[in-house]
Amino acid sequence: MQCRHVKLSGLRISRDITSLSPPPPPPPPSSSLPPPTEMAAFTPTPASIPPTNVLLRLKDLPEPHPNYHPLNPLAFILRAAQIYPDKVALVHTDVQHPVVYTFSVWAQRVQNLAYALINAGVKPGDRVGVIAPNCPLIADAHHGVLAARAVITPINTRLKPSEVAYIIEHSQCSILLVDYEYLHLVAGTKVPVVVSNDTGRAGDPYEDFLTAGRQFSAEKGWSGLDPEPNENAAAELCYTSGTTGRPKGVITTLRGSYLAAIANAFEGQMNRNSTYLWILPMFHAAGWTFPWASVFAFAKQVTLRTVNYTQIWNHFLHSGVTHYCAAPTVQIGIVNDPQAKKPAQAISAIIAGAAPTAHLIAELEKTGIKPIHVYGLTETYGPFTRNYEHPSWADLPLEQRARLMARQGHAFATAEEVRVVYSTDSDDDAPLRDVPRDGKTVGEIVTRGNIVMKEYFRDPEATRKAFAGGSFHSGDLAVWHPDGSIAIMDRSKDIIISGGENASSLSIEQELASHPHVLEVSVVARKHPKWGERPMAFVVLHPQHAATWENRHKLFEKDLKEHAKTRLPGFACPEWVEVVPELPKTSTGKILKVELRKRVAKL
Amino acid sequence: MQCRHVKLSGLRISRDITSLSPPPPPPPPSSSLPPPTEMAAFTPTPASIPPTNVLLRLKDLPEPHPNYHPLNPLAFILRAAQIYPDKVALVHTDVQHPVVYTFSVWAQRVQNLAYALINAGVKPGDRVGVIAPNCPLIADAHHGVLAARAVITPINTRLKPSEVAYIIEHSQCSILLVDYEYLHLVAGTKVPVVVSNDTGRAGDPYEDFLTAGRQFSAEKGWSGLDPEPNENAAAELCYTSGTTGRPKGVITTLRGSYLAAIANAFEGQMNRNSTYLWILPMFHAAGWTFPWASVFAFAKQVTLRTVNYTQIWNHFLHSGVTHYCAAPTVQIGIVNDPQAKKPAQAISAIIAGAAPTAHLIAELEKTGIKPIHVYGLTETYGPFTRNYEHPSWADLPLEQRARLMARQGHAFATAEEVRVVYSTDSDDDAPLRDVPRDGKTVGEIVTRGNIVMKEYFRDPEATRKAFAGGSFHSGDLAVWHPDGSIAIMDRSKDIIISGGENASSLSIEQELASHPHVLEVSVVARKHPKWGERPMAFVVLHPQHAATWENRHKLFEKDLKEHAKTRLPGFACPEWVEVVPELPKTSTGKILKVELRKRVAKL
Repeated sequence: MQCRHVKLSGLRISRDITSLSPPPPPPPPSSSLPPPTEMAAFTPTPASIPPTNVLLRLKDLPEPHPNYHPLNPLAFILRAAQIYPDKVALVHTDVQHPVVYTFSVWAQRVQNLAYALINAGVKPGDRVGVIAPNCPLIADAHHGVLAARAVITPINTRLKPSEVAYIIEHSQCSILLVDYEYLHLVAGTKVPVVVSNDTGRAGDPYEDFLTAGRQFSAEKGWSGLDPEPNENAAAELCYTSGTTGRPKGVITTLRGSYLAAIANAFEGQMNRNSTYLWILPMFHAAGWTFPWASVFAFAKQVTLRTVNYTQIWNHFLHSGVTHYCAAPTVQIGIVNDPQAKKPAQAISAIIAGAAPTAHLIAELEKTGIKPIHVYGLTETYGPFTRNYEHPSWADLPLEQRARLMARQGHAFATAEEVRVVYSTDSDDDAPLRDVPRDGKTVGEIVTRGNIVMKEYFRDPEATRKAFAGGSFHSGDLAVWHPDGSIAIMDRSKDIIISGGENASSLSIEQELASHPHVLEVSVVARKHPKWGERPMAFVVLHPQHAATWENRHKLFEKDLKEHAKTRLPGFACPEWVEVVPELPKTSTGKILKVELRKRVAKL
Repeated sequence: MQCRHVKLSGLRISRDITSLSPPPPPPPPSSSLPPPTEMAAFTPTPASIPPTNVLLRLKDLPEPHPNYHPLNPLAFILRAAQIYPDKVALVHTDVQHPVVYTFSVWAQRVQNLAYALINAGVKPGDRVGVIAPNCPLIADAHHGVLAARAVITPINTRLKPSEVAYIIEHSQCSILLVDYEYLHLVAGTKVPVVVSNDTGRAGDPYEDFLTAGRQFSAEKGWSGLDPEPNENAAAELCYTSGTTGRPKGVITTLRGSYLAAIANAFEGQMNRNSTYLWILPMFHAAGWTFPWASVFAFAKQVTLRTVNYTQIWNHFLHSGVTHYCAAPTVQIGIVNDPQAKKPAQAISAIIAGAAPTAHLIAELEKTGIKPIHVYGLTETYGPFTRNYEHPSWADLPLEQRARLMARQGHAFATAEEVRVVYSTDSDDDAPLRDVPRDGKTVGEIVTRGNIVMKEYFRDPEATRKAFAGGSFHSGDLAVWHPDGSIAIMDRSKDIIISGGENASSLSIEQELASHPHVLEVSVVARKHPKWGERPMAFVVLHPQHAATWENRHKLFEKDLKEHAKTRLPGFACPEWVEVVPELPKTSTGKILKVELRKRVAKL
């Protein structure tokens, strides 16, 4: 790398990254796993090799208790490295420079990162920014930043430079760990940057950073690192990728991360034979705590820089993948990939972001993939409800079963309580009132307990509003069924007021998605002279049926309207249907209704 | 029941139980499950039926936090009743009056128990004594006593009345829930007693107690009960069944119970399809937290009043049992039962109390039972280490594999740290020093973290000693292997000082158990004029081979000594061997070496 490096406590950090030479070109996407010989050829850097008889124990707390220890997910990697040192922990192979780390080696790298950060001046509570796709850098950070008692602050790689600049400024990061592909996002920053070329080889600035950390440690090892005595200290700062407005910084705690990670490992029934494939971006809501859940379960993690269906299927078929998380849009891509076929092992697909449709459930199950429908937000460490299936559902026709599976369900393990309450003014701190459990009355989903965020960072006003009445307000509207399960209707702005009736765009979408030729559909309100608003549907055709309707979209639109009439009340039937090649989406795969609304406003 | 009942806040409690008429004769042991018709005929008492639209939520905390909730295993049954109300939760069928409860009904009974206790004057922090075999009463108590914010105090049913009297006095129980079969243990007590005839039918005093609780609640339901705001409040008070001295009362916390229960559910990979069979007495070390772990996993629990191998095999073969806990001595009984054959489903046997021998491991595996070797104490909520198997062990010869599986292993999930340290004077509060991890140096196992007891009740001196140096001292001696796993050698009194050498009676036992004709063996020190002490072995012959040695025990003893010589150093070879029909055991199945030593002292 040709760049100016500033010596800072003995290690190289590029301080003015505008002067950086262009990053190396991204390696060509690999369509297959590297041959075994290539992996055999990989040797971790000398600094990654732990000393013999390594002691996997942090310094004692100033006042150690025999019977109380602050909950901290950092404990998981120390335990994994102790029990299964030689088990493969982290696999990153679909790149030009593949790497594989055992728990023992990975733990040493995590320790090196902690010392490197401390050496760089990072103090307890400081924020450490990370801009990276799924790769070892960000996986390391989920443990190493905690080991330095700092707060990992992952930044969405799909944001614009101005948005990234806002987050860096707002979070007051004291250092940034940045993948080479995303250096342009931090051009001009005054914050010190450590660049990773994602090679895992000597000469990579990130590797040099780790090596310097090891040197700085002077082999004090784990017992030279102070444990965080407060389990309610911040663990992670995640900025929500809101569809409107400035992103808000969600602060999670060590206690919450520990409990949510264990809950995810349990709910997914993960164990040391599991392999977790990173399709969900790790920067998104702390990867739903799977960076820690996987380690707690002693599972192997496989990181993918991009959502590449060829690579995904290679891993499904050849790497023994047993678990992955993804939004329905990505799941649709997976089951529709030409390589899709039933793998030898069972795979659990954790689905969130939207409810799976009957079509998707059927396609997943046909491929031997078991869907686990969960619901959550960045503010709730990912999942805080799960659709708990009942054995009796197995006998129901698919569509009926899918309707039950589409519900967001009940409180997740370690989540405390989930309620649907009448909406209140956010300035009203009156007790929240439950809506009746009638499956009809729409209210707001609220929750509270150990897997609710600590606060919005530097935004007490937003925090106060979010916690009005003593519970966290999700902003999602739902009904409460008599069985206690919740089912999201819509965000309030997704309700279409058609002829004075409240039509749920989500319900309309679910009915339209039951048309066999529909791949994806999104419904928004469009102004109507007579009814006030009426639903307008944007539809992506299923690839297998697109040819049928080529140049006949008007006919399809009519067909879909007919289909709707048999299933929806008149006020909820789409007045307009438009076939589109794709739907606009956020960086995390959520459909951007705000874009559709803009389009509709111009019609 | 003909007895004097004292009216106490409107409910019937027998205050002077010496005047009780004799309990009904114990029902004849049933050798088979009751026919389905009998179960269909069972209807829970009216008070056990929850109202429709029951709200499964306690009263709000005085200062509710949106993002913090005190950990409390009571949350599990509320969640289970919400998510799987109609799923079978508790099965008690091998009795004259079988009962089956769903989560919904069981939760109502738990609520009734809480109100009944409160109605009886039980205040937060009070101790509620329970004397019962495995049955609904004691299962209820693990949730209902917590719901009353009281401390469940199970008392070993195999103790003598004087010992029980000591515990009742020491624990200062404010009320006792007692199974009819154990009323003689509380004769003369001044503490109010609620008797259960274990019928689940109206007219049973315990059922009347629950019904009165429901009445007292005035249908305020769960939201009429105060939650415990302090997660470090006491959950359970368990008296250790020490082989010598007065029992000590171990106080565990809500936080520890919550974390240990989740850890056990995870380590056992339990889920809603699991069925846990109660072979381990629930009164023993809080049933290793399985009363809560099972509910957390939505598993079914089957209670057995006694260790009856016929009943056990009936449940293995016909009730879909997937998990059970037991000491090796009970496991030996299980695999040697004539009914033993491979069940259709996989069964995990959680083994503690002593290491499983190669013979036992082989027999279990032959029967399709997967052994999970854990180690723990009442003071550590049951398991705090586990033997984590390595895939590579599968290729080893059984005996070598068994030797690795006999190690107590590494820290359990949610356990913080396990060390082997040089023994120190218990008055010395100097930092503990680790022994080298050489697999040779013997030290004491210490641990600390969230699954270590809060204290010994009303015994600050014993607590201080147990926590010397800031960790809990197990009193068990072990070596620390280079891989970080620990292996128990002996309690200090189990070390035999033979010719100046330290011989581990446990190691000797393991070698003697490798003789194919040995079922069980126990080794103690016996005085020797020349060597100071020499090992003496007491052996129970395997039933299949007992005939071979009938009236030829001397020959067998010679054979076993020869066997020992090929495997043990001279100073560790047993000088004496005695074939016995059975070994003396504690109420929880541990071999009573103290009895063997007494016998040896007379030789």
